[in-house]
Amino acid sequence: MPLRDVSWEEFSGLSLDGKARALNSKGRLFHVLYAQQFGRKELDDLGALATQIRFLAKSDDGARFLLGLLPHRRAMLYFTQPSTRTFLSFCAACEVLGMSLGEVRDTSTSSEFKGESQEDSVRTFSSYFDLIVMRSKIGGLAERMAWTLSNSERPVPIINAGSGRDQHPTQALLDIYTLQRSFERRGGIDGKRIVFVGDLARGRTVRSLSCLLANYRGVRMVFVAPDQLQIGRDILEQLEARGVSYELSADFAAAIPDADAIYMTRIQDEWDKEQGESARIDTSSYCFTEADLARLGKEAVLMHPMPRRNEMAAGVDRDPRAVYWRQMRNGMWIRSALIAVQFGIAEVIRNRASETGVKVP
Amino acid sequence: MPLRDVSWEEFSGLSLDGKARALNSKGRLFHVLYAQQFGRKELDDLGALATQIRFLAKSDDGARFLLGLLPHRRAMLYFTQPSTRTFLSFCAACEVLGMSLGEVRDTSTSSEFKGESQEDSVRTFSSYFDLIVMRSKIGGLAERMAWTLSNSERPVPIINAGSGRDQHPTQALLDIYTLQRSFERRGGIDGKRIVFVGDLARGRTVRSLSCLLANYRGVRMVFVAPDQLQIGRDILEQLEARGVSYELSADFAAAIPDADAIYMTRIQDEWDKEQGESARIDTSSYCFTEADLARLGKEAVLMHPMPRRNEMAAGVDRDPRAVYWRQMRNGMWIRSALIAVQFGIAEVIRNRASETGVKVP
Amino acid sequence: MPLRDVSWEEFSGLSLDGKARALNSKGRLFHVLYAQQFGRKELDDLGALATQIRFLAKSDDGARFLLGLLPHRRAMLYFTQPSTRTFLSFCAACEVLGMSLGEVRDTSTSSEFKGESQEDSVRTFSSYFDLIVMRSKIGGLAERMAWTLSNSERPVPIINAGSGRDQHPTQALLDIYTLQRSFERRGGIDGKRIVFVGDLARGRTVRSLSCLLANYRGVRMVFVAPDQLQIGRDILEQLEARGVSYELSADFAAAIPDADAIYMTRIQDEWDKEQGESARIDTSSYCFTEADLARLGKEAVLMHPMPRRNEMAAGVDRDPRAVYWRQMRNGMWIRSALIAVQFGIAEVIRNRASETGVKVP
Repeated sequence: MPLRDVSWEEFSGLSLDGKARALNSKGRLFHVLYAQQFGRKELDDLGALATQIRFLAKSDDGARFLLGLLPHRRAMLYFTQPSTRTFLSFCAACEVLGMSLGEVRDTSTSSEFKGESQEDSVRTFSSYFDLIVMRSKIGGLAERMAWTLSNSERPVPIINAGSGRDQHPTQALLDIYTLQRSFERRGGIDGKRIVFVGDLARGRTVRSLSCLLANYRGVRMVFVAPDQLQIGRDILEQLEARGVSYELSADFAAAIPDADAIYMTRIQDEWDKEQGESARIDTSSYCFTEADLARLGKEAVLMHPMPRRNEMAAGVDRDPRAVYWRQMRNGMWIRSALIAVQFGIAEVIRNRASETGVKVP
Repeated sequence: MPLRDVSWEEFSGLSLDGKARALNSKGRLFHVLYAQQFGRKELDDLGALATQIRFLAKSDDGARFLLGLLPHRRAMLYFTQPSTRTFLSFCAACEVLGMSLGEVRDTSTSSEFKGESQEDSVRTFSSYFDLIVMRSKIGGLAERMAWTLSNSERPVPIINAGSGRDQHPTQALLDIYTLQRSFERRGGIDGKRIVFVGDLARGRTVRSLSCLLANYRGVRMVFVAPDQLQIGRDILEQLEARGVSYELSADFAAAIPDADAIYMTRIQDEWDKEQGESARIDTSSYCFTEADLARLGKEAVLMHPMPRRNEMAAGVDRDPRAVYWRQMRNGMWIRSALIAVQFGIAEVIRNRASETGVKVP
Repeated sequence: MPLRDVSWEEFSGLSLDGKARALNSKGRLFHVLYAQQFGRKELDDLGALATQIRFLAKSDDGARFLLGLLPHRRAMLYFTQPSTRTFLSFCAACEVLGMSLGEVRDTSTSSEFKGESQEDSVRTFSSYFDLIVMRSKIGGLAERMAWTLSNSERPVPIINAGSGRDQHPTQALLDIYTLQRSFERRGGIDGKRIVFVGDLARGRTVRSLSCLLANYRGVRMVFVAPDQLQIGRDILEQLEARGVSYELSADFAAAIPDADAIYMTRIQDEWDKEQGESARIDTSSYCFTEADLARLGKEAVLMHPMPRRNEMAAGVDRDPRAVYWRQMRNGMWIRSALIAVQFGIAEVIRNRASETGVKVP
């Protein structure tokens, strides 16, 4: 555990890239806190592993093989910021590998935690569990807890399942995996044109995903939003620093025909600073409707992190280019793959998959 | 999936019998929504299977065999109408077969679901689970979701665990199973006299059960209640249409001696339209007390769907004719049997049971 | 089940020792309600078994062996008094042995339980589960339920996980196990000096633990607290009756150097009769700080039932004499051992442990 060698002051003072390097310094994935921990190789390997797990799970035999891998390991899902979707996805991801689950979803229901420090609560979980998946409104909490555990007698890995407004690395991983699968027969993600639409200022998924996409060659990102909801300067600067080309636009209709992937997002009005702030912005032209299907490329895909409102018409669901339901299920597979890597069982899975003839591109 | 071939407008416009036929049209039980889906043969088979599961579970070996059947399947218990009893019974029923469980019990706790359509929520569940057991105050919700899933890329079966005021098919199944067991050595349910007592106007269990009893020959149903709580005309018309004989009465004491089974129910005052409506009705003579035991037939049985209040005296519990605790446990077995049929493992269970000498009447 | 032979009136009229004898009268641990049920032999055996389970769980093979013991048994955790820590510990303890879990944590969320008697609720649980672990604010509830179940058709064992203000037997067991481990190479608990510090008047852990310590030879207990929070006369009378020597003190600093174990407790202000009652007591000298480490014996240990506030400085955690995190994890092992005894699988575990070379002192 690299975190063991640095003080909290040192670690928390590092840049995001520095922190990512510190976490990966021993060459083994332990805590998963930032999208920045994943380079091209990690993404390729993880996607391949997710596909192997997915294929194994299709047969009774394969599913039982997977169940037999981690039955003696327990995961704590510590979700103080509510999220049924991400919660269920992690539950399924753990159960695919046979893990047992515990959950704490609202600390207010527990009188015991009153007056206890967050560090003590998380060390309590680490006493009974082998993995802690945590989601919190508090930015940086996951990293503080990771440091705490790495410096305790019983370090267990932490996965950040959404922390504050910035980081949601496993969402970005499932998005990458969906793009990998979508472009499997078209040369992969390299060189593709990805169009992001909607509330790009406040959604953490687009922020994390655009950072991971910078690992691919020749990707072109198009950010389509009304001015008030356009993507932050900080992200654009990161892309510029890595030499990634991008476009900003307010014209969604014009962006549809050339897109390889369109990534729709909903207006995140729960972050409004004053009541009705979002409602005053005209977002009516940032919706994808059945009529737009005619102008969408034949091999393009439509993505959405869900939940959706009216920005993605339900009538589009039956079109084979709408992959957002598959995208959701991909979250389960990529999270299983991630956990498999953390627990050092990726090799066993790869061997079994190759024995049973699962082919990975 | 038969539902795939009809539009929602067509399906929802059918009569209850028409819907039941549509659901069973491929000869295989998939979604379980209505008591009307079960004819005599289905009830006999299901009861026999429940008994086989029950006997297998008695031995360590048999219990482990059952656990090995569906460890790679996950059930979502989606209970937005609270019910600990039915919930726990389904948990146990799934776990007997080795399934993993997830639950969503109150959508209000999940911020993610805000603004999301019910269809999207249920499709989300279907992304991570292989069976959805749902209970809701909204009549018809289960059938709309069943249609939605059958028309999606990932159809998974739905079991209705109580929907609106009318349908609670698995409660009716467990009641039938309890009657089957109770009359096992007396020629079965055919020709028996079943006395229903209490709030027959508002309890959905009696409505569903009386419909299933119409599958048996020569059954006589006696509905005993004060006028205001007497069984609905719609049920009586259904019985008449199927040639089932029945009696209405307000005199419980007179009905006891000839009963083969007495089915007590509590006053459902949670459905009162105005405060104290039920309290103004004199229900004191619709209670079964220890004194009544002397007038009850030697081989008769006392049933109750639970929970009870004062209409069934606790002092009666030790009498062997009081079968309501066994009735509760029967709910677990019959639900396991139902799930086994849905997942196509009934045959495997039957074979194992016959190998190990389990005899079913 | 001994409880079957006595009426509730008879049983509830017995002294605590009388009740403990009645519960153990058949020589087999079934319901676990009081610390008084455990004598020296039971404590030695249970500690040895916990150690065997702990060592087996360290290896993949051993962990899988344990998981295979009770996969066909289900435990209900019925916690109407909130406690995340004890709850998670029992979850883990059950899962180590492969059991499935169900939980009811707040009866207010269930409309079905409205108007139902506690007896009926618990009998409902016993219909679907094989073990009931219950925690309640109501003193004596666990024993009433144990009697009820022992007198039903389906008796299942109850474990008291905290009942009212007095009894929390499994906490006392984990404390004893921590002392056993701590003094393993120093001749065991006999003859040791145990210093209790803090709110001794209101914490149930010290009450239960001091009672169990009376089973050991030559143990000296020192109760250190401000007058208002000093241990109750009833406990002291019990110790006197058993010939156990003790001291009362208000001077913590003086008690540190000679202690073999220091058991810190927090001020239980949730039991204050009037607001601010505890805050008016000066408890500043009943805290253990990093500075105190220098005066602590080299082989002494620091214990705390957790959660802690300022009475145990977090800076002490890294000192090897601070065993309170291990103490927490011991709770899991000793509870697994207890359940193993209840289900009659202790012998199987002992055999496996001795085959694989686990040595128990």
